Amino acid sequence: MKRLLLVTAAVAGLAASLPAAAQFQKPEDAVKYRQSAMYVMANHFGRIGAMVNGRAPYDAAAAAANAEIVATMSKLPFIGFVEGTAGTQKGSAAAKIWTNRSGFDADAKTMQDAVAKLVAASKTNSLDNLKGAFGDVGKACKGCHDEFRNP
Amino acid sequence: MKRLLLVTAAVAGLAASLPAAAQFQKPEDAVKYRQSAMYVMANHFGRIGAMVNGRAPYDAAAAAANAEIVATMSKLPFIGFVEGTAGTQKGSAAAKIWTNRSGFDADAKTMQDAVAKLVAASKTNSLDNLKGAFGDVGKACKGCHDEFRNP
Repeated sequence: MKRLLLVTAAVAGLAASLPAAAQFQKPEDAVKYRQSAMYVMANHFGRIGAMVNGRAPYDAAAAAANAEIVATMSKLPFIGFVEGTAGTQKGSAAAKIWTNRSGFDADAKTMQDAVAKLVAASKTNSLDNLKGAFGDVGKACKGCHDEFRNP
Repeated sequence: MKRLLLVTAAVAGLAASLPAAAQFQKPEDAVKYRQSAMYVMANHFGRIGAMVNGRAPYDAAAAAANAEIVATMSKLPFIGFVEGTAGTQKGSAAAKIWTNRSGFDADAKTMQDAVAKLVAASKTNSLDNLKGAFGDVGKACKGCHDEFRNP
């Protein structure tokens, strides 16, 4: 548990230090960056989902490893949501992200908080705990996508 | 320094637990995954590069934050180099990855070791240290790309 707290503290530190360095050479780079970070996050979240949904055997160590990666990734995409990238080719970010940035940021934090609980649940060696925390992260994903992602 | 060691231990733990869960639904997913992980890694490595090359002011905290993300990302792409994805559309992985997997894995480890030194250097508050470690990572990237990536 001590290790978990220290890792979480380190990740929080990363996020705090990132905005100052949040630069992209062109809008497309920011779109590709956030989509890449989301894709990696979704992949590792999906590996936990396979266990939760019975498509893969429950493996507590793998669940915990994947949850930690999800936690790291959960901090990253948001530096890619820079102004001017709403209508960028291939992007599906809704323009309202930039007219309601505080709402968007709040949704991001809701997700990150749910992911932190997923990390904790993944260390308890309980599939039931994992299922509950996984569902809460899924709800947080969907809540933000419904509001801030174009179909 | 204690925090750094604990974070590094956690990341090493992640990598050790990953192979068992390394599944993709189709080859294209594995290609997209590894390219996404590489893109995120390259972006954060590039943010350090901007400081090293004088295009951005040296910010020790930002350098350290980015180095830690590079370290996490450096473990991820390789689960995406699954057999059968050499000729996949859009992929640039050379077929020799799978005829010389031990050489490829050795190159990956060389890069990861260089990244671990970059993380250490980023905590010393010395731009010179950062420059040296950055250059070594760049050499490791190039060495593997020259050998195992199609032009």
